[in-house]
Order: sequence, then structure tokens, then C-alpha cells
Amino acid sequence: MQCADEWSCISETGCDCTPFSSWAAVCTLAHILADTMTDSQTDGAAAESPMEFYEKVTAQGEAVRELKTGKAPKEEIDVAVKLLLQLKLDYKRVSGQDYKAGWPPTDSPASGESVPAAAEDGDDLVDPWTVATSNAKGVDYEKLIVRFGSSKIEAELIERMERVTGQKAHRFLRRGIFFSHRRVQQPCPSALDMHQILDAYENKKSFYLYTGRGPSSEAMHMGHLIPFIFTKWLQDVFDIPLVIQLTDDEKYLWKDLTLEDCHRYAVENAKDIIACGFDVNKTFIFSDLDYMGMSSGFYRNVVKIQKHVTFNQVKGIFGFTDSECIGKISFPAIQAAPSFSTSFPQIFNGRKDIQCLIPCAIDQDPYFRMTRDVAPRIGYPKPALLHSTFFPALQGAQTKMSASDPNSSIFLTDTAKQIKNKINKHAFSGGRDTVEEHRKHGGDADVDVSFMYLTFFLEDDEKLEQIRQDYTSGALLTGELKKCLIETLQPMITQHQERRKQVTDETVKQFMTPRKLDFHF
Amino acid sequence: MQCADEWSCISETGCDCTPFSSWAAVCTLAHILADTMTDSQTDGAAAESPMEFYEKVTAQGEAVRELKTGKAPKEEIDVAVKLLLQLKLDYKRVSGQDYKAGWPPTDSPASGESVPAAAEDGDDLVDPWTVATSNAKGVDYEKLIVRFGSSKIEAELIERMERVTGQKAHRFLRRGIFFSHRRVQQPCPSALDMHQILDAYENKKSFYLYTGRGPSSEAMHMGHLIPFIFTKWLQDVFDIPLVIQLTDDEKYLWKDLTLEDCHRYAVENAKDIIACGFDVNKTFIFSDLDYMGMSSGFYRNVVKIQKHVTFNQVKGIFGFTDSECIGKISFPAIQAAPSFSTSFPQIFNGRKDIQCLIPCAIDQDPYFRMTRDVAPRIGYPKPALLHSTFFPALQGAQTKMSASDPNSSIFLTDTAKQIKNKINKHAFSGGRDTVEEHRKHGGDADVDVSFMYLTFFLEDDEKLEQIRQDYTSGALLTGELKKCLIETLQPMITQHQERRKQVTDETVKQFMTPRKLDFHF
Repeated sequence: MQCADEWSCISETGCDCTPFSSWAAVCTLAHILADTMTDSQTDGAAAESPMEFYEKVTAQGEAVRELKTGKAPKEEIDVAVKLLLQLKLDYKRVSGQDYKAGWPPTDSPASGESVPAAAEDGDDLVDPWTVATSNAKGVDYEKLIVRFGSSKIEAELIERMERVTGQKAHRFLRRGIFFSHRRVQQPCPSALDMHQILDAYENKKSFYLYTGRGPSSEAMHMGHLIPFIFTKWLQDVFDIPLVIQLTDDEKYLWKDLTLEDCHRYAVENAKDIIACGFDVNKTFIFSDLDYMGMSSGFYRNVVKIQKHVTFNQVKGIFGFTDSECIGKISFPAIQAAPSFSTSFPQIFNGRKDIQCLIPCAIDQDPYFRMTRDVAPRIGYPKPALLHSTFFPALQGAQTKMSASDPNSSIFLTDTAKQIKNKINKHAFSGGRDTVEEHRKHGGDADVDVSFMYLTFFLEDDEKLEQIRQDYTSGALLTGELKKCLIETLQPMITQHQERRKQVTDETVKQFMTPRKLDFHF
Repeated sequence: MQCADEWSCISETGCDCTPFSSWAAVCTLAHILADTMTDSQTDGAAAESPMEFYEKVTAQGEAVRELKTGKAPKEEIDVAVKLLLQLKLDYKRVSGQDYKAGWPPTDSPASGESVPAAAEDGDDLVDPWTVATSNAKGVDYEKLIVRFGSSKIEAELIERMERVTGQKAHRFLRRGIFFSHRRVQQPCPSALDMHQILDAYENKKSFYLYTGRGPSSEAMHMGHLIPFIFTKWLQDVFDIPLVIQLTDDEKYLWKDLTLEDCHRYAVENAKDIIACGFDVNKTFIFSDLDYMGMSSGFYRNVVKIQKHVTFNQVKGIFGFTDSECIGKISFPAIQAAPSFSTSFPQIFNGRKDIQCLIPCAIDQDPYFRMTRDVAPRIGYPKPALLHSTFFPALQGAQTKMSASDPNSSIFLTDTAKQIKNKINKHAFSGGRDTVEEHRKHGGDADVDVSFMYLTFFLEDDEKLEQIRQDYTSGALLTGELKKCLIETLQPMITQHQERRKQVTDETVKQFMTPRKLDFHF
């Protein structure tokens, strides 16, 4: 089951569309956006007021939710979602504003960093629960940066990072996969951006890393690994503590799963995360359901945050409605709390001034804009953020890889043969229809999913550039490009599987036990 | 500081008006209701629609909140509150419905037990954050029972209780102070009322007691003791486990206090509670802030409840608005969770079928109506409830005793002399203006606060009846009645103070350590 509005997807058993709240959010909307949307144009739109459009969007949003809750046929839901997207575009055209649930057109936006997460530019739709574009090259991240108010990671920052750490920047940085960070708009001693993190590192001042995952099923795919691969590199480079949150509570709140299932998925996902190579002496992985009942600091911070965020604010940021359960409404505080070092007294010895750096997919940003708004009001430093792009689905960069459609995803459990078949059969190609044409005109690397995946996983910059040139010139055929990707991914996944096999229950327990790490605070 | 809307009282440092959420809720509105309300009648009311009235009430409610948040002068707040009460009465007159925040006049009430808590009959105003009446005899509890949908504790139930337990009923039962319980409307194996609790007791099936307190200051007064005195008696009679929740998290969310203050008040209040004589082997007292981080069961139940209650529901039940912080919105789940035995795995060995009986003041009922609505949906038995009346202020039964006005309250720390002076000076008298008139016409015991207090604390039924007769006939003068009360309270408070002195930090720690009690499950 593919799904557009992941928040209302709780009744879709087996759907792993992993909403905004699931850290490495992935959602396939390709089937929706591959079609044109003109046929869903609303009647008499020109004569209506922004408020009327606003109400139409709201009503259609509710209709989509109802269809999903009622497990309506996929086709019916698809049509309703298409209409919803069209109505949102219409609303923007008429009102000059993005649609934000709970924010009628006459309202002014929230102050501070907690601006609504919705972002639509042209055909792009990026908010905490939907990532979709009609552009085969993927979301326009330059525009997203402007809308989200974050800053592009410029070459200068990467160079400084290399200079300060003495290490070559990770390929995710070199290639714009981690492409954005949070700018400090005004000089503020408690706010951090990546430059200040580097200042801290130069001054031997410690900070820590925080990332996470929403464990909605046992199956993790390659897209889920992106933040963890990068976080592992950051941990190695900076030699700092890392906390990894598994939001099993959030999956329980959003999906039609039992608490026990969500907790089990958390433990299973922890094995894949551990297999990325984290150092047990420097890494604490926790399930919210467990850790909330084991920590003297976590709940206290949750309550502090919850006191300083109103329903109006989460409505504006996340689009919650009055019919949302109170668990969802208060959950953002639980994802925010690990941004503050007092949530981990066992690691930071009760110190509240240890700065936090959060690598995450950019759809998680709304949580941390909220967190940064709250931080100074409860006496804590603001966390710094590094944002990644989305990992494209096999079918194309119009949407993210989704575990709910086995054919759109390469799973960490896939065999070498499955990987080969999936890539050969499903990876969207920028090649020409015939070998002759391809040799003559060349392929389009910018829309070719196999090439995109190589930018994520092929370490050798020169080889990657050579492939791009050869593909563009027509010297390299689609089959050859795919073979190159297959040969890159197969050993990577095999090695992951071997490392995962080594991860025993005892190892998981070690990582997940609240304890002091190998750092002194 | 006296305060009408306790929820918005967060900026009133030192105010201990202990809202609905503080278990033994006490709020003085005497100064408001002692005046007539006709001068606040709104203009042109007859010409307006229910919706317009609804909006007026809502706006005035917000105005009151703003005044309080802005620490406006007491007089200004009083006037605004008076107007609010009048507008609510007007609204009811026009719409035929009680005002419920978030429930416009066209809406139908919520299904199930979670009906809004507001209850106005004539001049009575009883909702989770306001208890007030213009009747010197106090709130009309007969009407309240009808409105809240609970059942009166009839003589037959008390007789059965005496028969089953072989003990004389507590004076609070004999005298209608614990006056109401929750009826089972349809045969339901998972729902309990007091009859079913007695069935369980007869069948040697165990159950447990749950009560609590919101620790908003160190100072507790006599009214706060009522649920604990009665719970102690229930524990002795039934010999069952007891859990006592101290909602320090809730006090932090509602008031202008630090987490540390709230936690400290919780520990201090625990000493007064322990001094009521609870058995350490049968009683677990917990601070939410501590226990949430120490229990594998508590947070899991909180999340389960939070998944099954919507913002619309808590809006209807508690009158929350969109500008409420998300902590308040989700808090009801935290007061609900101890109603389920799996919140205490250390006591109940993980069993989820142990029934719960909750003695509390009736203004706490909205929490437990919500709890009873949720229970079957998460596979737990509904808790049973025993409701008490409010403990009157010294100035009269129009309102409850409030710790915020030292002259309205007899504190557990008062000296014998202070008790004597307060009663002589402030206790509202039903006596006549002169001795001659009193001798001739007699006093009115029904409005006499000293007599009311004796019904709470004088154990001897015959003596109490004799006092009532003598006072009514004029044989007993007000001074003599007060002397009788003074002589009843002074040793009671002295003994409490002596018992409290015996309560060491070590004792508190024992009570507050999660552990197995002397029961086998």
C-alpha cells in the first residue's frame, strides 16, 4: 500500500510509509504524480474566495483520512489524494499562501522558527507527511531551503570542516546529499549552526550527536541507512557521544499496531542500526517506551517542553486537527527532548550545556524548528541541524523510497539476485529508447535513478564523474550503468547482512542499556 | 489570592486554589457569590441567539484568563468572573444547555460517559475548575448526581457494605459526605460500581484503591485530608493495596512553579499523607515526575490512553482551548493511568485484571469518566468511584476551603490557638443576632459551618444529633457550638502534627519506592 498522507495511515497494516515522524521518512507518491492533475481541477474555482478554497482543502483532507481509515480501495484513495493535491495548488493560487491545516487564509503565520512545515513550489509538495514532485530530477532543494529558512551547506563550510577535522568530507557532503543546515539568524550564544559546532570542536568543547528512526516494521531499506551512515562518519570524525531514538511510542500512536509490535520493531531495527558500525562505548540506542521508564531526566524534559508549546503551535507546525488523539498532539515533545543533554543524565552527568547536532532528513526539520523555539525558554542550548535530501524510489525521484512497495525499495534483507532483478526491472532509466539513439544522444543522468544511487554509494569521485560523462555522452549504456550500481550495492548489502548477523541480543542489550559512555562530563 | 478559574491561575504565585486536577479541589468564590449578580446582566440579551451568547461566554472566559495571566488586580478579576458566571446563566437560559467550552450550542454532546463536566443548576456552578453556589447550605448534590450521571449512595448500599465487611460504615458514608458512586448503566463485566466491588470482596477477589493529590504548595488544610481519611478507612476495612498519585507534573504545567518546587511539594505533602496512618506495607505513594522514569508500565499505559482520547474529547470534558499547552492537553491520561493495575507491575505482577476503586472529591470525576470510556477499548476493567462532597470554607458552604486564603482555611500546621481564633472569628454562623433571639428562634444548623465541620469530624452520631437539636432549638449558643468544634479539631490537628513529626525522610523514601507490597498477585 502506497500512501500520501502518512499520518492518517494508521489503519493500513503493513504500510511502512514512515511519516515525517519516522526520521528517515519515505513515501511513494509516484503513482499519483505520474498522472497529470488537470482532470481534477475544481469547478468554478475562479469565483471562490480563499476561505472557500481553504475549507475545500480541509474537507478533502478529511475525506482522504476517512477513506484510509475505512480501508477504501487503493484506486479510490489515489483519486482523492490527487484531488487534494490539486486543491492545495488551487488554494495557493487564490490565496497566495500555502495551505496549512488549522491556519485559515486570514491568519498570520507563527512567530519564531516554528513556521508551518508545508512547502509547495511549482509541483513540489514537501511537508512533514508528504514528499512529492512532478519533476523527475526530484524535489527542488534550493527552493526548499528558502522556504524552510535553513542554509545551504556551501563549499566553504565543507572546506572548513575538512580543515578543522583533518578528514576528507564524507561523499554525502561532497555531493550535496546532506545539503542544508540551520542558520543562526541573530547572534545567540545558545543557538548553534554547523560553523559554531566547528568552533566548539576547535576549542575542544564537546557536543553530541542525536538521530533516530520510527520503527514501523522489521523491514528497513537502503534509504533508511542514509542518516546512520552519515552519523557514523560524524561520530568517527568528531569522536563524540551519540544517542539514537527509536520512536516506538510514536509508531503506536500513528499506526494500527500494538505496543508490543512497535517495541519489537524497535529492537529489530536497532540490529540494523548497530550493523552500521557504531561504537558501543560511544553510542546509546533507546526505545521511547523503555527509556521513558528508566530515566530520571527524559520525562522531566518532555514535561518542560510540553509546557512551552501550545496546541495552536503544533497545529501550525504539523497540521494537527481537533480530531487527533492527544498522544499525537503531545508527541513532538518526545522527539524534541533528546536534543537536550539533561535527557541523558547517565551520559552527561546532569550537565545541561552540552550542545547537540542532529543529522536527519529534511522532513524531520519541523520537530527541530519547534525544539529550537522552545530551547531558550527552558534554559537549554538550541540544537544544530544537518539536513539530508530524500532517497529516491526505484521508480524515480518524484518520491522517496518506500518500504510499503517491495518493488520500489531495496531492502537490507534482499539477496544479491533480488537486488540485481529489482534494479534491472524497476530502476527508472534516463537512457534512450534504443541503443542507437542512446549512442547518438546520450542518457540523462539527472533523472536516472541508478546514477542517483551511485552518487549515494559509490565512494570514488573520479569514477562517478567518469560514469556521468560516459552515460551523458552515450558511451555507457543503461544496462552497463545498472551493472555498475548492482556491483556497488551487492557487496554493500551482503556486508551489512554479515555484520547484522554478528549483532546478538546481548549486543543490542548493551547498546540499549542506559549507562555512562566513554566520555567524561 | 482567591481564584475562580483555577486552570488559568498559573501566574498566581502562592495561590493554592488546587484545581480539579489537584484531587481534593478547593476554591473560594465566596467573595464573588456573596454579592448579587443582577448588576452584571448583559444588555439586550433577549434579542441574541444562543450562538451569540456562546461566543460571549467564550470571550469572557478568555478575558478572565488574560486578567489572571497578567496578574490584574483582584477586584478586576472578581468583576470579570462575576460577569462570566452571569453570562453562563444567560447562555443556559437562552440555549437550554449548559455552557461547555468548545461545544457550541448546535453540537450534540459526546457519547458514552465523557459528557462535559460543567454543571449548573440554579445558582450552582460545578465544573472541574470551579465550585460555587449562592446557597449557604452548599452545592445541591442531589442535582449534581443527576447531571453527572452518577448514583447516590443509598442506605441499602451502606447497609450491605456493613454486612459484607462486618464493620460499621465510616461517618463520611453515614452522613452523606461520600455520597455518590458510579453506576453501571448496562451489564458489563469490565465495569464496576460499589456493589460489584462488594461482590468481588465477598468472592475473595482482590481489588485496589487509588487516590491522589496535586501538590501545589507545602501547606495542606483540613479539607485536603478528607479523601485520605476515608481511603485509610477503606484500606483498613478491605485490606487491599493502595496507590497514591502526587501530580507534581500537572502542578508544573498549570502553575507558575519550577519542576523542582513541584517535586519538593510532592515530598512534603507525602509526609502529611503518611501521617494519616497508612500502612507502608500496603501503600505506594508516587510523584509522577519520579515514577514515570522508574516504571516499565506507567508510560506504556499513558500512551495507550493517549491514543484513544482525542483533542475534541478533552476539549468537551475539560474545556481546553487551542491556546492550551500540549502538556495540559495530554495530562488527563496521566491521571487516568493509575486506574489500571498494569501501571504498577511491581505490585500486581503484570496482571491487568485487578479492579480499581477510586475515592475522590466529585470534581475529579471528569478524569475518571474519561478513564471509564477508554478502559474497555484498551482491554482494561473500568475503575469504580466513590465521590465526596466539597469541604466548606470557614466563611460558608458557598465554596470550598482554599489554602490561598489563610483565614478561610484551617491548616494542618495551625496551632491550637490559631484554630480557636479562626473558628471564633471566621466560621460562618447559623445563629441569631442576639442571644435572646437565638434562645427564642434557634439557630440554622444547615448553614452553620461549625456544625458542618462537626459532621465531618465528630465521630459520635448521638452527640452530633444532640448538638443539632440543641442548636436548632436555641438551647445551644453559637459560641458553645464553636467551642465544641474547637475541642474536636484541636486534638485532631495536634495528633496529626505529632504523627507527621514521626515521618522521617527515610519513611517517605520507603513509601515512595516502587516495590512489591504485602499482597500476592
